[in-house]
Amino acid sequence: MGASEDGVAAEGLGAAEALGADLHLDLTGPGSRRAVLIGALREAVRSGRLAPGTPLPPYRSLAADLGLARNTVADAYGELVAEGWLTSRQGSGTRVASRPTAMDAETGVDAEADGAGAAGPVALPYDLVQGKPDPAAFPRTAWLASARRALTAAPHEVFGIGDPRGRVELRRELAAYLARVRGVRTRPDRIVVCSGAAHALRLLARVVPGPWAVEAYGLPFHRALLGEAGIRTVPVAVDEDGARVDRLPGAARAVLLTPAHQFPTGGPLHPERRASVAAWAAATDGFVLEDDYDGEFRYDRRPVGALQGLDPDRTVLIGSVSKSLSPALRIGWMVLPAALVEGVVAAKGEREPHSSATEQLTLADLLASGAYDRHVRRMRQRHRRRRDRLVTMLAARVPEVGVTGIAAGLHAVVDLPAGTEGAAVAAAARHGVAVEGLSGYRHPDDGSIGEVRRDGLVVGYATPPERLYEGALDALCSALRSALGSPCVETNERAARI
Amino acid sequence: MGASEDGVAAEGLGAAEALGADLHLDLTGPGSRRAVLIGALREAVRSGRLAPGTPLPPYRSLAADLGLARNTVADAYGELVAEGWLTSRQGSGTRVASRPTAMDAETGVDAEADGAGAAGPVALPYDLVQGKPDPAAFPRTAWLASARRALTAAPHEVFGIGDPRGRVELRRELAAYLARVRGVRTRPDRIVVCSGAAHALRLLARVVPGPWAVEAYGLPFHRALLGEAGIRTVPVAVDEDGARVDRLPGAARAVLLTPAHQFPTGGPLHPERRASVAAWAAATDGFVLEDDYDGEFRYDRRPVGALQGLDPDRTVLIGSVSKSLSPALRIGWMVLPAALVEGVVAAKGEREPHSSATEQLTLADLLASGAYDRHVRRMRQRHRRRRDRLVTMLAARVPEVGVTGIAAGLHAVVDLPAGTEGAAVAAAARHGVAVEGLSGYRHPDDGSIGEVRRDGLVVGYATPPERLYEGALDALCSALRSALGSPCVETNERAARI
Repeated sequence: MGASEDGVAAEGLGAAEALGADLHLDLTGPGSRRAVLIGALREAVRSGRLAPGTPLPPYRSLAADLGLARNTVADAYGELVAEGWLTSRQGSGTRVASRPTAMDAETGVDAEADGAGAAGPVALPYDLVQGKPDPAAFPRTAWLASARRALTAAPHEVFGIGDPRGRVELRRELAAYLARVRGVRTRPDRIVVCSGAAHALRLLARVVPGPWAVEAYGLPFHRALLGEAGIRTVPVAVDEDGARVDRLPGAARAVLLTPAHQFPTGGPLHPERRASVAAWAAATDGFVLEDDYDGEFRYDRRPVGALQGLDPDRTVLIGSVSKSLSPALRIGWMVLPAALVEGVVAAKGEREPHSSATEQLTLADLLASGAYDRHVRRMRQRHRRRRDRLVTMLAARVPEVGVTGIAAGLHAVVDLPAGTEGAAVAAAARHGVAVEGLSGYRHPDDGSIGEVRRDGLVVGYATPPERLYEGALDALCSALRSALGSPCVETNERAARI
Repeated sequence: MGASEDGVAAEGLGAAEALGADLHLDLTGPGSRRAVLIGALREAVRSGRLAPGTPLPPYRSLAADLGLARNTVADAYGELVAEGWLTSRQGSGTRVASRPTAMDAETGVDAEADGAGAAGPVALPYDLVQGKPDPAAFPRTAWLASARRALTAAPHEVFGIGDPRGRVELRRELAAYLARVRGVRTRPDRIVVCSGAAHALRLLARVVPGPWAVEAYGLPFHRALLGEAGIRTVPVAVDEDGARVDRLPGAARAVLLTPAHQFPTGGPLHPERRASVAAWAAATDGFVLEDDYDGEFRYDRRPVGALQGLDPDRTVLIGSVSKSLSPALRIGWMVLPAALVEGVVAAKGEREPHSSATEQLTLADLLASGAYDRHVRRMRQRHRRRRDRLVTMLAARVPEVGVTGIAAGLHAVVDLPAGTEGAAVAAAARHGVAVEGLSGYRHPDDGSIGEVRRDGLVVGYATPPERLYEGALDALCSALRSALGSPCVETNERAARI
């Protein structure tokens, strides 16, 4: 089927399905080769299979791939440029024109059909839902610098099939960092990198038998995924000193805790309770699963080290960069007792490291270079400022509510008079504030342990961009005033601030 | 607890657990503040919690965090530098010395304990195990350039909580790319990004009911994870025209196929069978799961488009960058019928995008810029050369074996005389070649469909670095000669090559 003149062949290319190696074209049909090729390209553009802006292969390559004469392909490109289907510019080759004729609505690729805006309810202007840092604070420059260093220095084997525990470079840095910052006692071979706390819980659910005791207040999302994984969760009461670990149910084989900053109510686990839960684990062969979700963000003179340091053989520490850098990176870790490493790796899947090796190396460099520490320090200062502003403004404008859980973290709890939580959340929404009530975090079985219902708001103060934070607090206070009545204080504070 | 003179305070810091905000230190115990701090830092280094090379916080920061006088901390640093525990250099601050005294073997961080070299058996010098590209071929420069462009241009929301389907920028590029290169008909909102084919199968196992028909030859790893996920797999015979889809078991609700290049035996699914499996799916409300694992690597004039194009409403296309770029990136995708999108997203987990947003944007840029196409084209040429060299050398030195499945992909099958496979694999290992036999890929139930056992080797020719490829082939041929006897041809070919 070598080179031939245009128009000489009277039939199509004779193949049921002749395709360019990189360009899927139907070259059947009557007419000269040139005409068939033009028709196929035109159809590919018209139907949207070749999207606007798509570069076409050089005509020499396409000719070689299709077994056509170069002239045939060059002529076809020229014709389609003349017809407006393609564009050709010196230096940038031939591309699909940016606005071809109307595309097939069913198969076409267009911006409206991609569902970008279809996720969930309409977003409110002020986001005080807990759980995520301000996306604008991500340290792009430092991250890119680390990526460049890490990728330039990486040995080739990085791009092969990796260790399911994660890159050793990252596990080494994590072992050193967690020892230094969180008092963790471990070694790199007891760390398994995963894609976040949820992934960690799914894996642990396969190796740590249930039932698990969980705090009476916690993430419903975590409880749901544990239930799905076959782990029954039983609630443990929570007070201002954290979980009542003196009341662990006898059947519990493990207990999932947030010792540094009870989530979401905010108390750190009392030192006596820390000792007592470690003793429980040793006595019962149980495991303590320590969700260290915001351990780096503590604003007091006396931060709390990880519980893991008390008994590395019975404690799993779960951490991630989701609060410190971004939940979009999907990098987390488990610090495991030696006895659990093998099971967790098997559950993870030998071929499924999940986290990208290049991003793991980038994070390892960020840790080693000190840039991670600098970022955390900067964020800690910012969060502390925001927390102080929240406390000050609430004290001035809504003095009848208390604010608790403020010693650490990215959120605080605004305690509300009994029966007002629903009204407060609704008022917040009317004032443009997305915020969650405390009741959504209650374990569904917490009535069984005599837990008294608390009304409150879980206020995430880390998320709004700097320029919107004051506005968000102002709207929150106004909402609380309207939900709780007696707006006199608001006027005073407003006057004072103007 | 403001500034104070060293040695004035006669007791420890008075806190049960006073810690630096970034440095976990036990500051209890008797003695001056300076002495207590020195003891705590020394202990942290000695025990390995502060690893060699770790930077210490600036003394001003640590002083502020601990509520100590700056002089106290500066003095403590100076003392420990003098003792050799720390080092201090102009411009790089204070760090833990690179070789402190012997560290606690249990808790210390050292290179030997990280398990870097503990994975699996001793590696053979020549890696011809199928499944992965040469790690040295990863396009680092292009990847970094795309990362820089993508991260610089990204809107802030990228670093927030993402769409569980994956970044829309990537889904748009994939829709256009797969339409152009694989003849796929889809839209961005029907694509879900995942971390690879195994992740895709785990998710599909939750929404597509079993049993699934699978090819009698396939990845045991995939069959195992499906079994674990509760999907019973039933084998379908395979011949040189791909799977015998005319013999799908009546109970099958779905069929998992490798239509472009049957894995691992190598035939493309015959056009009549393509039509017939599409008809089966339409008639039975079944699903075709198309594992398009190496669809970009075809070396013939007539590459085969994706089956998905025949019936986008009953076909799931599964793809990834694991063969084209690297398995270390953990980026894959599913192109889904509209009816399956919601279920797959729910199975994936609303909060678990798994793949890093920054890497998804990098890949989107790589696709949009044409760099991905250039890399695939370069790799295709290289793989084709390697395949040709394999075929030529085998024909010359081991002429009694056939080579099949060579029209596409990153591997070929060397057909062996009955009963010789085990000897050939063992001989290969003795010659330093890691390679797998065909029998490991057989479905355990394939006797029930009367499948005749084939002896063969699955030779992955993409993995070795360029400089080792000829040596790998030479060793493979020598191994086959020694396993099959009659070495005369080897001598001739050797003579001819010298």
